[in-house]
Amino acid sequence: MFTHSLETLRRRRSAKWRTYPADVVPMGVAEMDCTLAPPITAALRAAVDAADTGYSAAQPDLGEAFAGFAARRWGWRVEPAAVTAVTDVGVGVVELLRMLVRPADTVAFSPPVYPPFFDWAPEAGARIREVPLTAEFRLDLPALEAAFAAHPAVYLLCNPHNPVGRVHTHDELAALVRLARLYGVTIISDEIHAPLVLPGAQFTPLLSVPGAAEVAVSVVSASKAFNLAGLKCAAIVTGGTALAAVVDRLPRDVRWRTGHLGVLATVAAYTEGDAWLDALLTELDARRTELGEQLRTRLPKIKWIPPEATYLAWLDCRALGEDDEPRELFLARSRVGLEPGTRFGARGAGFVRLNFGTSAAILDEATARMASAAGR
Amino acid sequence: MFTHSLETLRRRRSAKWRTYPADVVPMGVAEMDCTLAPPITAALRAAVDAADTGYSAAQPDLGEAFAGFAARRWGWRVEPAAVTAVTDVGVGVVELLRMLVRPADTVAFSPPVYPPFFDWAPEAGARIREVPLTAEFRLDLPALEAAFAAHPAVYLLCNPHNPVGRVHTHDELAALVRLARLYGVTIISDEIHAPLVLPGAQFTPLLSVPGAAEVAVSVVSASKAFNLAGLKCAAIVTGGTALAAVVDRLPRDVRWRTGHLGVLATVAAYTEGDAWLDALLTELDARRTELGEQLRTRLPKIKWIPPEATYLAWLDCRALGEDDEPRELFLARSRVGLEPGTRFGARGAGFVRLNFGTSAAILDEATARMASAAGR
Ligand SMILES: Cc1ncc(COP(=O)(O)O)c(C=O)c1O
Ligand SMILES: Cc1ncc(COP(=O)(O)O)c(C=O)c1O
Repeated sequence: MFTHSLETLRRRRSAKWRTYPADVVPMGVAEMDCTLAPPITAALRAAVDAADTGYSAAQPDLGEAFAGFAARRWGWRVEPAAVTAVTDVGVGVVELLRMLVRPADTVAFSPPVYPPFFDWAPEAGARIREVPLTAEFRLDLPALEAAFAAHPAVYLLCNPHNPVGRVHTHDELAALVRLARLYGVTIISDEIHAPLVLPGAQFTPLLSVPGAAEVAVSVVSASKAFNLAGLKCAAIVTGGTALAAVVDRLPRDVRWRTGHLGVLATVAAYTEGDAWLDALLTELDARRTELGEQLRTRLPKIKWIPPEATYLAWLDCRALGEDDEPRELFLARSRVGLEPGTRFGARGAGFVRLNFGTSAAILDEATARMASAAGR
Repeated sequence: MFTHSLETLRRRRSAKWRTYPADVVPMGVAEMDCTLAPPITAALRAAVDAADTGYSAAQPDLGEAFAGFAARRWGWRVEPAAVTAVTDVGVGVVELLRMLVRPADTVAFSPPVYPPFFDWAPEAGARIREVPLTAEFRLDLPALEAAFAAHPAVYLLCNPHNPVGRVHTHDELAALVRLARLYGVTIISDEIHAPLVLPGAQFTPLLSVPGAAEVAVSVVSASKAFNLAGLKCAAIVTGGTALAAVVDRLPRDVRWRTGHLGVLATVAAYTEGDAWLDALLTELDARRTELGEQLRTRLPKIKWIPPEATYLAWLDCRALGEDDEPRELFLARSRVGLEPGTRFGARGAGFVRLNFGTSAAILDEATARMASAAGR
């Protein structure tokens, strides 16, 4: 499932393998070192062989495929027609924001969080309001209530939450929905990591929470779980008429901007990818355990809360340095490339994000290298 | 080079083959019925086999590949670093417009023209000003001067011009540049059809015109000529510092929205695609001749000016009906799907656009069917 050879992986031309020189083990950019699920390989090969490389025609296939996947994996009932293809999750969020915000409006979200959350609202012409997670990396509901009382136009939820790997509970989401309804805030739920919930946690799709569909819209993608980020396909999903009307107002060209091979691969993933995904989650669970063990024995100065989802580990390296010193240390001294914590917000100072979507061998190599840099 | 069998083509899942029921011969959506250039097939197969499907890392490959192509095909000197990857031409234009226009501003362009030209300026928050082509489908320079005197922020050039297939001459472009400099108008040149200039015409890249680089920016793509529209890769090209500074201000996420397989295919097209492209142009030239002959003998009521570029024919069917009646006639009576002329602007009434990027057999079938609907 994962490629063990750095030499083979370095032949990839994607961002993860182009960011650093060849002596660095890249553990940053959120791509996995996996092979593709066989049904995806088959769909892509067939398309290439048939020169089926024209404009995407996402519907009805994409909606039907996602509805089936959501029902099987999470018992979430989705109307296929309520699924709208977009280029990627970022484009989906930004296009929704353009419809939902006016210049003086605010978009709230909870750092530490995926760096583009800081950019998407400004790109849509709005200001940002940070409502940090608690020290245990949970939604801070009292702080959210205080923030919502100032009437931000939108709260941008990350569920599961990158970089901390938190899967927000049904109760937390129900409380969030109650606040959103009370204060008239629209929630955009970025659920790109939803298929990557690891054993031990249970994913709640926001729109499955009672009352959510009237105030919330989700953006989903197969791109993280099936490693298809470069194929440019994600989807906006609605559950109620108000948000469906917002989606209807999107510029009509948006639909033509989705990758055709992305749609074909995503349909294959959602309809025939379950077995591969289950095997992946078992692997990632093992990798999480191995990483915990390696941190304990090799890098005792680093603290972490093991993620409930994603292949990302949010490592508290404050004992090793301030700001992005730990990241620079690991890069300079041990040639391991990690995401610097401050990219995820000011509270990321002293943290790094490590991508464990890789083979046991490469993870072992990376933490062994890191240990030599960090000392005891 | 072109697939002859409608049955085989109908297995494609791209927009061209999903727009109509199976009894219709689709001659609308601008995809070709070609196989892929062998170097593109090889690049895509290699990426799929290596699961090289993560985020695109366009530079430096894309810029170098385009610079080589531009130099070989048109003697146009491009700095590789002045090439910026974007999702597609539409996204490139809209993102540039967002940087270049303010709410009250106007974007001028010359219909009949590719339908999204009418949508891109509103998407970026600007108004549109139409400056139609002349009756011979040339730039109307006196009308452009009058329009430029009202100081539109941007003139959106289509070169070669879809749907009429006009390749603007060096002299016309030099006059346009002179007007742009005189009145302080920025030109965005959509050069997606540039590689598709047919025997008999000569393409002039706008930025190769003296004085253009200071006031103009181009958007290019391999997607029309190599049939890669679904792979989501185009590029913004600048030649001077002022427009390069505009590109520098684009949201940093824009770069991540380009298709990785699109970049790989495009690099293959630009570096190893010349022989295939030359063979394609010979085929399209033949198809243009065949179409002229078929129109003359089978559809004498239809008038046209044969295109100098593209695989698109702009057919004057005003003798057959008003508005989009000709298109409806050909669809209802002969089951041929054509683009309705009014999509290209009000002056497209009575016209249809026919896509001849197909085999001789399918073109023959389409015009034979059309003849039965049109009478003599
Ligand atoms: C929370 C989150 N949203 C969005 C993305 C990016 O998605 P896309 O490439 O579809 O914009 C990522 C990528 O890691 C992510 O972690
Ligand atoms: C003039 C012109 N510009 C742009 C496009 C579309 O390009 P893209 O799909 O890269 O936005 C077309 C498609 O036919 C076109 O004719």
